[in-house]
Amino acid sequence: MAIDDDMEVGALGPYTDRPRVFPSMRSKPYKPLIFRVLMGVNIRVLLVLMLLGLGGIFYIGASTSPIIVFVFSVCIISFLLSIYLAKWVLAKDEGPPEMAQISDAIRDGAEGFFRTQYGTISKMALLLAVVILSIYLFRSTTPQQESSGLGRTISAYITVAAFLLGALCSGIAGYIGMWVSVRANVRVSSAARRSAREALQVAVRAGGFSAMVVVGMAVIGIAILYASFYVWLGVDLPGSMKVTELPLLLVGYGFGASFVALFAQLGGGIYTKAADVGADLVGKVEQGIPEDDPRNPAVIADLVGDNVGDCAARGADLFESIAAEIISAMILGGTMAQRCKIEDPSGFILFPLVVHSFDLVVSSVGVLSIRGTRDSGAKGAVEDPMAVLQKGYSVTIVLAVITFGASTRWMLYTEQAPSAWLNFALCGLVGIITAYVFVWITKYYTDYKHEPVRTLALSSSTGHGTNIIAGVSLGLESTALPVLVISVSIISAFWLGHTSGLVDETGNPTGGLFGTAVATMGMLSTAAYILTMDMFGPIADNAGGIVEMSQQPESVREITDVLDAVGNTTKATTKGFAIGSAALASFLLFSAYMDEVATFAHEPFKQVDIAIPEVFIGGLLGSMLIFLFSAWACSAVGRTAQEVVTEVRRQFIERPGIMDYKEKPDYGRCVAIVASASLREMIKPGALAIVSPVAIGVLFRILGYYTGHPLLGAKVVASMLMFATVSGILMALFLNTAGGAWDNAKKYIETGALGGKGSESHKAAITGDTVGDPFKDTAGPSLHVLIKLLATITLVMAPVFL
Amino acid sequence: MAIDDDMEVGALGPYTDRPRVFPSMRSKPYKPLIFRVLMGVNIRVLLVLMLLGLGGIFYIGASTSPIIVFVFSVCIISFLLSIYLAKWVLAKDEGPPEMAQISDAIRDGAEGFFRTQYGTISKMALLLAVVILSIYLFRSTTPQQESSGLGRTISAYITVAAFLLGALCSGIAGYIGMWVSVRANVRVSSAARRSAREALQVAVRAGGFSAMVVVGMAVIGIAILYASFYVWLGVDLPGSMKVTELPLLLVGYGFGASFVALFAQLGGGIYTKAADVGADLVGKVEQGIPEDDPRNPAVIADLVGDNVGDCAARGADLFESIAAEIISAMILGGTMAQRCKIEDPSGFILFPLVVHSFDLVVSSVGVLSIRGTRDSGAKGAVEDPMAVLQKGYSVTIVLAVITFGASTRWMLYTEQAPSAWLNFALCGLVGIITAYVFVWITKYYTDYKHEPVRTLALSSSTGHGTNIIAGVSLGLESTALPVLVISVSIISAFWLGHTSGLVDETGNPTGGLFGTAVATMGMLSTAAYILTMDMFGPIADNAGGIVEMSQQPESVREITDVLDAVGNTTKATTKGFAIGSAALASFLLFSAYMDEVATFAHEPFKQVDIAIPEVFIGGLLGSMLIFLFSAWACSAVGRTAQEVVTEVRRQFIERPGIMDYKEKPDYGRCVAIVASASLREMIKPGALAIVSPVAIGVLFRILGYYTGHPLLGAKVVASMLMFATVSGILMALFLNTAGGAWDNAKKYIETGALGGKGSESHKAAITGDTVGDPFKDTAGPSLHVLIKLLATITLVMAPVFL
Repeated sequence: MAIDDDMEVGALGPYTDRPRVFPSMRSKPYKPLIFRVLMGVNIRVLLVLMLLGLGGIFYIGASTSPIIVFVFSVCIISFLLSIYLAKWVLAKDEGPPEMAQISDAIRDGAEGFFRTQYGTISKMALLLAVVILSIYLFRSTTPQQESSGLGRTISAYITVAAFLLGALCSGIAGYIGMWVSVRANVRVSSAARRSAREALQVAVRAGGFSAMVVVGMAVIGIAILYASFYVWLGVDLPGSMKVTELPLLLVGYGFGASFVALFAQLGGGIYTKAADVGADLVGKVEQGIPEDDPRNPAVIADLVGDNVGDCAARGADLFESIAAEIISAMILGGTMAQRCKIEDPSGFILFPLVVHSFDLVVSSVGVLSIRGTRDSGAKGAVEDPMAVLQKGYSVTIVLAVITFGASTRWMLYTEQAPSAWLNFALCGLVGIITAYVFVWITKYYTDYKHEPVRTLALSSSTGHGTNIIAGVSLGLESTALPVLVISVSIISAFWLGHTSGLVDETGNPTGGLFGTAVATMGMLSTAAYILTMDMFGPIADNAGGIVEMSQQPESVREITDVLDAVGNTTKATTKGFAIGSAALASFLLFSAYMDEVATFAHEPFKQVDIAIPEVFIGGLLGSMLIFLFSAWACSAVGRTAQEVVTEVRRQFIERPGIMDYKEKPDYGRCVAIVASASLREMIKPGALAIVSPVAIGVLFRILGYYTGHPLLGAKVVASMLMFATVSGILMALFLNTAGGAWDNAKKYIETGALGGKGSESHKAAITGDTVGDPFKDTAGPSLHVLIKLLATITLVMAPVFL
Repeated sequence: MAIDDDMEVGALGPYTDRPRVFPSMRSKPYKPLIFRVLMGVNIRVLLVLMLLGLGGIFYIGASTSPIIVFVFSVCIISFLLSIYLAKWVLAKDEGPPEMAQISDAIRDGAEGFFRTQYGTISKMALLLAVVILSIYLFRSTTPQQESSGLGRTISAYITVAAFLLGALCSGIAGYIGMWVSVRANVRVSSAARRSAREALQVAVRAGGFSAMVVVGMAVIGIAILYASFYVWLGVDLPGSMKVTELPLLLVGYGFGASFVALFAQLGGGIYTKAADVGADLVGKVEQGIPEDDPRNPAVIADLVGDNVGDCAARGADLFESIAAEIISAMILGGTMAQRCKIEDPSGFILFPLVVHSFDLVVSSVGVLSIRGTRDSGAKGAVEDPMAVLQKGYSVTIVLAVITFGASTRWMLYTEQAPSAWLNFALCGLVGIITAYVFVWITKYYTDYKHEPVRTLALSSSTGHGTNIIAGVSLGLESTALPVLVISVSIISAFWLGHTSGLVDETGNPTGGLFGTAVATMGMLSTAAYILTMDMFGPIADNAGGIVEMSQQPESVREITDVLDAVGNTTKATTKGFAIGSAALASFLLFSAYMDEVATFAHEPFKQVDIAIPEVFIGGLLGSMLIFLFSAWACSAVGRTAQEVVTEVRRQFIERPGIMDYKEKPDYGRCVAIVASASLREMIKPGALAIVSPVAIGVLFRILGYYTGHPLLGAKVVASMLMFATVSGILMALFLNTAGGAWDNAKKYIETGALGGKGSESHKAAITGDTVGDPFKDTAGPSLHVLIKLLATITLVMAPVFL
């Protein structure tokens, strides 16, 4: 890896006279190829090219629908805003040289890993693109598609192009998330030397930057694809395909996004937690040195992990969440509009894009509402940062309710059912409330202000074993309330949609599923702000690490500690939000899959009957897939962490001077070990997720062929998808909550309860925290992605199951 | 509790001159009321009564079918055999007084807990009987039932009577299991002083006794009910009900059995593991004294736990497994025979009873084939006890294959499809092979001869945290292979049945489901022998504890240690067997439920379409139920164990002389604490299991009524059942395997690997073992029961969902 071994021993900080070690500053910062090319081009040429591109986009948009122009405009304005935010953050100072040195080492490690990781991912994506291309070249197309000139070849290229674009955008989203976090961390540390409020503001704006870019890119990517296909295929012209079928062409984009997100989350998640667990096991438990102590050889790897695991991976994750949700809602909207023979269906199809455009607007307001106070010169925690973030969230949510109502009236008003938009607005409200309740439940189970974590902390006082038992029970129990909430919201949104007054030709109500879709959109209508809060966490965490490593005075550490604690809470709550939206979205994606199969198979596909043995088996295999995937994700962390432990122990033995700051630890070796191990380990679970649904579908398709059972493959896959979704939701809830609770139980004991730091209870709590790490930051978040990946892969691969 | 506080300090064993403490012998052994009544009656009167009863049974049997007479005869012969086995075991000596004293204390504790526990359970059962009665008095009946005179009232009383009989028999099965184990344990210890082989034989025959009684009682109970209803209702007479509908009347029996089994397993499981975990945490981890050391105040509670948890609970568990499986197979056989218009359907209906009769025969041969060698005077382990048990199993399995083939030819031959019996014989073979493969997989994942446990042990060397992560991953991963095996066997058995040549009126093949049923029977065709091996485990464990506590010489301990280790393996493998059969059986019970709903609702009920939101929600709730139940079961153990830890710590502090054998620990207090806590803790998860399916069914029935969706309640319950089954199978596999692997990883380290006893690796491995205890002995086995309970409760409560 890129970290130089020659470190200056004794580079001195201002507050201590002990010799300390830091990684030396490296000279040549890495820039991706595309940046270098862009920078080589004359600025005026670049400007002209950009303007031309923009003009082209707007021209296509204008030929499609004024709604698309609106979406484009909002996205571009939010990109401009995000550039402002980035400039604002980068204009902050990097603090004293020792901080900058550490930050450089982190940046090197993170960018080096990102390069290798995304290199691997892009090779796999290209391979998969070839597979998809060949599948689509041999698939069957619908009569309408054939008649509208959309033959096999075109649809194959369209799907592959969408897939690659989705993958590329997802990669960029991940890169952006990491790019800003490795730069913002040191600026937050530096700002913390001045004031708590300023540090908070820097972290929030850095998070806000990547949130705007991620959400904006998801929206504009889909909008561009939609508009291009619309113009290119001459949609809605006589004899061409109908606009209601257009969204089906976009599924490749969702699949590309989730494909990249899965590997980003797996690789990053394994990296961050293997480094964290390894560093803690030797540093904290065996040697008794504090977290992020510069004497720990794995400390840089740990800090790098926060960036590649939490920032890059979460960026890709939320990108694909939003993309998948938008596309599935567009498909459902299209299907419903077609069934109801709505005159202008584009309102129903484009509604999700509008919702997310407003999301960008209201979240920007929320982020900007968090300002530095006037007395920014005063040190010390003036007010609770959580309260500040909450205030911003309240602003966002109020605006979101208003704009959501306005969007439903604008987009979903139809003369056939004049009050339908009101029902859908209520669906959106159901979604917003669901999000709120989810966040609250997660907080209840993971915050040490409440009963569950306190009980868990108490169980640490009787040993490691009872702590683990209590944590596992807590996690398993915490699945109950969210499931009840999801159940109520799916049913109520469905019935609100059902009774909206939209009916098909035969007079049957058809709005039910679209109601669920609208609820999901409601839930995600503040996604950009949520993502901001989420990104805030690892940036604050890293800033704390830099402050600790550069041995700043106690007052600075206090500030970053508070920010770090808040970051932990926001990270945990946004996970609750993510799994809630995944649960709702998966139900949509499942319906979209059934619609798609019906379209491809030229026959109705309405039922997935689990009383058929093969279909039941599909379900069994689907649930098993979740268990196996979680197993592999956790054991990858365990194995890699063991390598780190062995290496750190070796360094402590071979270089006994490390503990007295007399010898420098070899940070680079730990970084290299973790990086190569996590790249190796991400392949197995990733491949499982990609290969097994396809293999099962093909296998049962063949079985169905020989036993005279039509559509068996598609049915089994549908059942697999449903069972995997249900098990995945539960498993993710379990893993996330247990992990968060263990973490906070430890933190609670560290506040001095039950014997405080160093007591036996504390040791038991650290064991719990260690176990929770891969649960909550590797397996859990990977499951969020997996659930949606399974849905998008079945959507894209549907032709091979038929 | 019944243990006397006044213990003699210094009651001396022959091999040491240290003063040691034992609980004093108690004078008045407890006998249940029924025994006392029977013993009060003149022996001749008793004999006459018994003969009259037997005559009556055979008379009814003869009026029903010669097959029933055959079943009766086999059962009665096997009861006689079991009496012989019991007498043989009881004729063995109880060893020196110090052994007998310990054994008496264990017996007191176990019987005291059993009394209180079953007192609570019977009160709940009576309450539930009233509820069922009122539900059935207000339910609707089928036109045929009405016309055949089987009105509401009769069918209500029949169901309630069957429920109570099932509950009673299950209770007796549990009592028998415990009765023999608390008597055999000390005899095994005593025999171990003479020869390894003799000790093995005593343990096996004691296990064989209760296995014969449990299986025999399940079979004869159903046979008596069937014959009585047959005669009483005048089945198959013109104008009465058809014999193919008779099995539906038996579902109450299965429900009663699983109701008692659930609470037996929960209460016993919580008891045994809370005592074990509590004893280990303070004794082994904190004080560093060995397991089963007399200085540990919780040691008697731990030994009592083996009896009430493993023996009593497992007896009830396997009783209900067999009962539920027989009844569901009878229902499916009846439905199929009716559809195919088979002349004499009784062969298909009574087939399961015949299979289990042969099970009794072949398992007896297997048990008796394990004989004491001639040189029984020679001490020392002559041969591997596992090999001896395996040889007996091989004998049993070969005989089972032969008798199974013969039974299919005898019972399932029909002129309509002359080769059908051969297909069904192959289904049985599929089941037998499945059982074998399941046992092999469980062994692979839990035996330290193989890779997984060795890797797990290795992960202990890097700390508590990595050990837990590795164990959880191992457990999650171990779900994959069993699921694949189950999938293959369900599909192949289904297709063997499907192609058997049995067709319904319209020529559609109908034998598929019955094929799956036959495979399940094949799997359970050696159940009595498996149960023998399972019961062997806790008896050997207890014997080891008695040997340790009475401080026998090293050579005796070696013998019981080997037996204990073998017992652990058999316990683990029979759990694999139990979950495999539960998985197969649940699919049958599900089909039986759908048949029953169709019968009650007077309309076809063939599909459970998970694309309907409410049905999907049902599935989500079903899976959630499994998670929540597991959470409550585990946390019950954790909480109770914490109470034990506190108490044991208190005793060590208040009586510092305990460690030097100068003061006596207060065993009785630990027993009392565990007993009352586990009775309290079993209620919450038990009530959840009983109440939630009924509540969900009723709720969605009402919702369906208001939204115009017929049968919604029944559909949602069906989906809940399926998802709960799938999640339950996976969760149980996870919990059982992880627990077993942790246990054996610890044992592997104790053989001297990775630092051996007392090393840091060993401490980490003990943490894993502690966590695994409630997984594998409380939550896991309770889930086996829960899966079947959900199926039987929905069968019995079906009328309220319609």
